[in-house]
Amino acid sequence: MFENVLVANRGEIAVRIIQSCSDLGVTSVAVYSDADETAKHVRMADEAYHIGGSKAQDSYLDREALLEAAREGGVDAIHPGYGFLAENESFATAVENSEFVWIGPPSSVMADFGEKTRSRTIMAEADVPIVPGTTEPAPDPDDVRAFADEHGYPLAIKADGGGGGRGLKIVHGPDEIESKYQDAVREGEAYFDNPSVYIETFLTDPRHIEVQIIADRHGNVRHLGERDCSIQRRQQKLVEESPSPVLDDETREEICEAARRGAAEAGYVNAGTVEFLYEDGDYYFLEVNARIQVEHPVTEELTGIDLVKWQLRIAAGEELTISQDEIEPRGAAMEFRINAEDPDNDFIPLPGTLSSYEPPRGIGVRVDDGVDEGDAIAPFYDSMFSKVIVTGADRDEVIARGKRALSESTVEGVPTTIPFHRRLLVDEGFLSNEHTTNYVDRELVDE
Amino acid sequence: MFENVLVANRGEIAVRIIQSCSDLGVTSVAVYSDADETAKHVRMADEAYHIGGSKAQDSYLDREALLEAAREGGVDAIHPGYGFLAENESFATAVENSEFVWIGPPSSVMADFGEKTRSRTIMAEADVPIVPGTTEPAPDPDDVRAFADEHGYPLAIKADGGGGGRGLKIVHGPDEIESKYQDAVREGEAYFDNPSVYIETFLTDPRHIEVQIIADRHGNVRHLGERDCSIQRRQQKLVEESPSPVLDDETREEICEAARRGAAEAGYVNAGTVEFLYEDGDYYFLEVNARIQVEHPVTEELTGIDLVKWQLRIAAGEELTISQDEIEPRGAAMEFRINAEDPDNDFIPLPGTLSSYEPPRGIGVRVDDGVDEGDAIAPFYDSMFSKVIVTGADRDEVIARGKRALSESTVEGVPTTIPFHRRLLVDEGFLSNEHTTNYVDRELVDE
Repeated sequence: MFENVLVANRGEIAVRIIQSCSDLGVTSVAVYSDADETAKHVRMADEAYHIGGSKAQDSYLDREALLEAAREGGVDAIHPGYGFLAENESFATAVENSEFVWIGPPSSVMADFGEKTRSRTIMAEADVPIVPGTTEPAPDPDDVRAFADEHGYPLAIKADGGGGGRGLKIVHGPDEIESKYQDAVREGEAYFDNPSVYIETFLTDPRHIEVQIIADRHGNVRHLGERDCSIQRRQQKLVEESPSPVLDDETREEICEAARRGAAEAGYVNAGTVEFLYEDGDYYFLEVNARIQVEHPVTEELTGIDLVKWQLRIAAGEELTISQDEIEPRGAAMEFRINAEDPDNDFIPLPGTLSSYEPPRGIGVRVDDGVDEGDAIAPFYDSMFSKVIVTGADRDEVIARGKRALSESTVEGVPTTIPFHRRLLVDEGFLSNEHTTNYVDRELVDE
Repeated sequence: MFENVLVANRGEIAVRIIQSCSDLGVTSVAVYSDADETAKHVRMADEAYHIGGSKAQDSYLDREALLEAAREGGVDAIHPGYGFLAENESFATAVENSEFVWIGPPSSVMADFGEKTRSRTIMAEADVPIVPGTTEPAPDPDDVRAFADEHGYPLAIKADGGGGGRGLKIVHGPDEIESKYQDAVREGEAYFDNPSVYIETFLTDPRHIEVQIIADRHGNVRHLGERDCSIQRRQQKLVEESPSPVLDDETREEICEAARRGAAEAGYVNAGTVEFLYEDGDYYFLEVNARIQVEHPVTEELTGIDLVKWQLRIAAGEELTISQDEIEPRGAAMEFRINAEDPDNDFIPLPGTLSSYEPPRGIGVRVDDGVDEGDAIAPFYDSMFSKVIVTGADRDEVIARGKRALSESTVEGVPTTIPFHRRLLVDEGFLSNEHTTNYVDRELVDE
């Protein structure tokens, strides 16, 4: 095992990684921007290095500063967390070519999944259903017209380098093709340095279902069950749960095994998530997130497996000692993202200082956060500062405990998404499992 | 299910009961003494009644005041928690004879287990090994001499109405018999209103192992695995864990099944614990705790079953829907009792105000407590104000997470047992599982 790891991130995921390092007897080196000088992840790490200004591009996105901190700290390996450089193939390559180990998938695998057409091809080859559409870039708006003639509207033009909704344009009829095509190309170029786009049928009202994968360097690939992340606000997940209440056992097994097969086909290593859309009983591969995800604790609660710990062990060359049969999800779990946002005002982020912060406790309640009382939530980064993960025997118990945990939470100094979550937990459509990825925007947010 | 429940207790167990009530959609009525007017359990309950002065005998032990609060609050049932009147047979009888349901074992079962010779007889009839000794009271010191002639020294004279070490006198030789006999009689009379004593062989260096039982009114009796509570200071438990690292699978199954059989023989209903001593590969029934215990969360973490919720459901007449086969403990867990005591000064209780209180969070960490920051810990009651329960895949993971959780805990204003626990988690004897119930007093406490 490594002796010392650089945590190239901030906030709750940096704290999370530091905790698993500590559990493994590994020391951790934190990095921080100007704004994060006294942040919780800095207080908790064994050592910490200043890497630049408050803006992400001046610090957490500064590859050279991160590598310099790794050298100064004398670490063995670098954990990127999620966001920032976690899915940046060229940073992963730079780390691979350095004296440090990259705690994540090989850069070659990241490259495969960074290009959406390539990942669609891999999945199709593994007999995983993909959203109907092209597996090659569409170099001309005429390709879109030809696709529409065959498959109809709505359709989606997507940036080949995109993901998570960025560079995605929905086309409802022929007169939108030209402008949407150019928009997608432009966004692809701006955000992902890749002007290629491809075409997919647009599923109008799907569920978002994803499968947690873990794989070692010795060819062992396991799935750890699925998560249902259909509660989204403008394609940003707000609540994730497992098991998905929309899947029967047979489909659950099928979709999880498809994800596992696809990951094996790709030569996947380390933790990752295979995302699917699910509509009318069918599921379609969407994309792979080649990193640990925000919602990974939901799976940890059901399986009893520490995913971050396994990320380190796999990166250190260890073999996955758990067989697929030994992974037995138990009960149900739900994660509530606590963001410093005003849910009654278009979820506008409102940074501030946590004048009071008392997270919930008790049976079935886990809290992963990046703050203590008195800490500031800076305007420079993601507004999520805490996650409340609730576990129980079944969905009903989780919902009851979720209501209790959220009502026991005290946060003062910033508005939060807690009132939204509390409304969700008494919403008929959510309780009776009728929601899709559009449900929050359509039913639960006043425009 | 009940609509409204009186929580006839205080501190963390009152909070715990209120939480499970809330999870069941049941409202809760708290009671409070002068000292507890603004306590957390009062803040969390739906309603609260003042029942008297700060001393326990003026409030939490005042049966009439409790019944009056139940009437005023219009409750359906009374949960006694642990301690105070939880094992008081005559209070249970009074509740049974009132309009309220007693959330606990029937008073007749409590009577059986309140008398130690009777409970030993019941267990022996169910083929459960008991500590060698008498199953009838020993009315004369000569009975002790006769027992010693047959079984040797050391032996124990125990108050028939006793338990948890009270009214227990150890005899090392013939000249101690007379005085120890009279001491045991006197303590039995003073503490338990029962001068009867009986005789047992004294196990000099045992482990304390107990089995969690749950039983409904329809004859279904289940065990939920064992807990090892050998880390004790003067017979007060400090740390509890499961699985017991001293049992092999066969003995574990045997001891758990023995406990289940004994509880069934006794016609047990509701949650309870069958306690054993374990020495040199043999186990012996010690006593039954006919109530929920402080350390019940250890079992909840392993089984995923909410014991307090089941206490309510069983009291309301529901049938246990879980078969024995479906109860599958997973992983390992350990509970650390956080007491306002000075572990470096003979564990002297030192009440005070929690000027700072930041319980640990993150993966594998559960905190059950009766306080928030700023709360006072009153001198009138038990010094335990919080429990940190750590869960993991195995004992090693639990110990690593325990170290982390305890190092992340902040408590200012009172001394706590946290430094003791942190020393324990690096103690060779504990780590290599060589400890017995005498270990803390012998090895870990400077006298």
